[in-house]
Amino acid sequence: MIYADNAATTKMSDAAIDTLTRCMKETFGNPSSLYSIGQTAKEVLEKAREDVAGVIGAQPREIIFTSGGSEADNQALLTAAALGKKNGKKHIVSSAFEHHAVLHTLERLKKEGFEVTLVDVHENGIVRPEEVEKAIREDTCLVTIMYANNEIGTIQPIREIGAICRQKKVLFHTDAVQAIGHIPVNVEEDNIDMLSSSARKFHGPKGVGFLYVKKGIKAENLITGGAQERGKRAGTENVPGIAAMATALKEAASKLDENTVKLSAARDRLIAGLKTIPHSALNGDEHSRLPGNVNFCFEGIEGESLLLLLDDKGIEASSGSACTSGSLDPSHVLLAIGRVHDVAHGSLRLSIGETITDEECDYIIKSVGEVVEYLRGFSPVWRDLVSGKKQFIL
Amino acid sequence: MIYADNAATTKMSDAAIDTLTRCMKETFGNPSSLYSIGQTAKEVLEKAREDVAGVIGAQPREIIFTSGGSEADNQALLTAAALGKKNGKKHIVSSAFEHHAVLHTLERLKKEGFEVTLVDVHENGIVRPEEVEKAIREDTCLVTIMYANNEIGTIQPIREIGAICRQKKVLFHTDAVQAIGHIPVNVEEDNIDMLSSSARKFHGPKGVGFLYVKKGIKAENLITGGAQERGKRAGTENVPGIAAMATALKEAASKLDENTVKLSAARDRLIAGLKTIPHSALNGDEHSRLPGNVNFCFEGIEGESLLLLLDDKGIEASSGSACTSGSLDPSHVLLAIGRVHDVAHGSLRLSIGETITDEECDYIIKSVGEVVEYLRGFSPVWRDLVSGKKQFIL
Repeated sequence: MIYADNAATTKMSDAAIDTLTRCMKETFGNPSSLYSIGQTAKEVLEKAREDVAGVIGAQPREIIFTSGGSEADNQALLTAAALGKKNGKKHIVSSAFEHHAVLHTLERLKKEGFEVTLVDVHENGIVRPEEVEKAIREDTCLVTIMYANNEIGTIQPIREIGAICRQKKVLFHTDAVQAIGHIPVNVEEDNIDMLSSSARKFHGPKGVGFLYVKKGIKAENLITGGAQERGKRAGTENVPGIAAMATALKEAASKLDENTVKLSAARDRLIAGLKTIPHSALNGDEHSRLPGNVNFCFEGIEGESLLLLLDDKGIEASSGSACTSGSLDPSHVLLAIGRVHDVAHGSLRLSIGETITDEECDYIIKSVGEVVEYLRGFSPVWRDLVSGKKQFIL
Repeated sequence: MIYADNAATTKMSDAAIDTLTRCMKETFGNPSSLYSIGQTAKEVLEKAREDVAGVIGAQPREIIFTSGGSEADNQALLTAAALGKKNGKKHIVSSAFEHHAVLHTLERLKKEGFEVTLVDVHENGIVRPEEVEKAIREDTCLVTIMYANNEIGTIQPIREIGAICRQKKVLFHTDAVQAIGHIPVNVEEDNIDMLSSSARKFHGPKGVGFLYVKKGIKAENLITGGAQERGKRAGTENVPGIAAMATALKEAASKLDENTVKLSAARDRLIAGLKTIPHSALNGDEHSRLPGNVNFCFEGIEGESLLLLLDDKGIEASSGSACTSGSLDPSHVLLAIGRVHDVAHGSLRLSIGETITDEECDYIIKSVGEVVEYLRGFSPVWRDLVSGKKQFIL
């Protein structure tokens, strides 16, 4: 079995599993408790906070542990909205291909009277800083642009966008769920005010993530109640999960260079191979993309059938975001980069892991080629394309 | 070491640890994914949902998995508030000794124009159904009363309150975080519309809980984004944690009768023993209380010093809720049952586990007696009481 859907979720690393297992058995105390086992849990928690902060260039007190990336995104947007309301600023700049945790939260804020401008992501899947700058108004309270797209893997010019926000004195949030642990991220150098991350994207456990909120910004609670997380996130901290996240993140950071070389080579091998399939196209910029991300459209086929047949061949991949699978609508990301509905339906995302081999890459290329050809064999759309009734796009 | 703070958090059961460990290693797929390992995760998730629902007499589709009790409380209140707003009903009935996840969320709703009536919990720590009935108005959108109090363990007449709410057509939510897994709870028989629970209170993992929302009630998202949990809670499900919660809950349910007998006997032994300490008093009703809960006030001492000295003697206990420890204010629960500030400061909560022995109970009684006497030895308040400058209350 070749697992090529690491953007959906990763397998936990052995070290992270060890941390979680040990902590679950030994450090089960409530970190808010005064007695020994509570205080031990508190120490583990604060060490994890230091470790996580260290990897992204933050201060420990700037880290709020959450239940994952979606919660962190929701809290970031709520924080900006609360500050915006207070200052009479109710305009937000974002992009059309953000994760739904951002886009749906923006929809909710619209109902509360916020106005949202979505900047173009262009054919290459990259936001242009000058267009963000143009979109910022007097009443803009937030710019939220993801660090790397979850479907097509394109990396955004975060540092430049952050610099513009600093200069314009507008809060800048980035959903870095796909970036953290995979490419270098430094909140200081990147001019980031708020950043969301999820442990399960970098071989940490599910149900854990964090929100970075720059010192001086008053975070708004999404979950109110107990005084945990300096009063910014109620609910007893999931110490074993948080500790395992820290283990996974430190490990990912220490192997970042090595993995980038390995993954980029495999990615480029896959891209080169899949390009030889007729009427196919890579989605998103070829260079400014995550080391492990490959995303293609194949004309004349349905992504879902492609996935099921690849699964039969032992390849686990996706057509886009797992969060929206089951939906009949084509990917909003592919539509945002200008793919038409028909073409967007025939998409394949391969998000590979560090252990992939050249042989596995070649097996994927061969299998995708076979399955695409097989599916086109009884596709009415393909028949129309071949007969000239419809025009090829790719 | 005697761990007597199970109300703060429990140690995971071996079976729950096994489930989590196995699932973490083997079932790491994203349950929204179409391929085999995703579908396996989906099966595990849905089996857990059936198991959890089964224990509380609910339908699987009525269970929303959350990151814990606080999140569930927040979502329940948000749901009722959204429905209330829609129907022009902005009044909520609750009690003064709810958990802060409820009380602080009510504070937030007040800022949005909601009115809140807190019914009395009386000296015995029990809400009176007829007073709930009286508090309900034409514009009441929600009654939220906890199933069992987290500090003094008193069990509320939930079924009667639920029946009143049904009759008055008002939504009824209960924070059952301390009850689930410890006393029998059945959402149908108890007339409950929404119920919050947390896995770590019944030997499940931290960072996992659930919200029961009766079919027909439109749950409002607290976390918006992906379409997980039937669109009611965004974020990829923490499948290993959820599966481990189901394991722990089934285990707790199967041992409920046996544990109740064991724990009640130990509890009553502790209560009888601690009562012999002069100027002490049990907090909360002696009979309608959780099998494992003992909560005392000792006049003339500070709870924090008591805890630290007990810790030295190998007894891990708390003065009340861990969520508020570190705060200098006395427990809002003890104030709500009429304890004055001075007395409320000298509180001790022992929440014992199933493995406790008679010898351990006796050791606790002896140790508490010694520590209380020792602390009174240099307490200025105690000196004033003994000299008659101040009047004894207990």
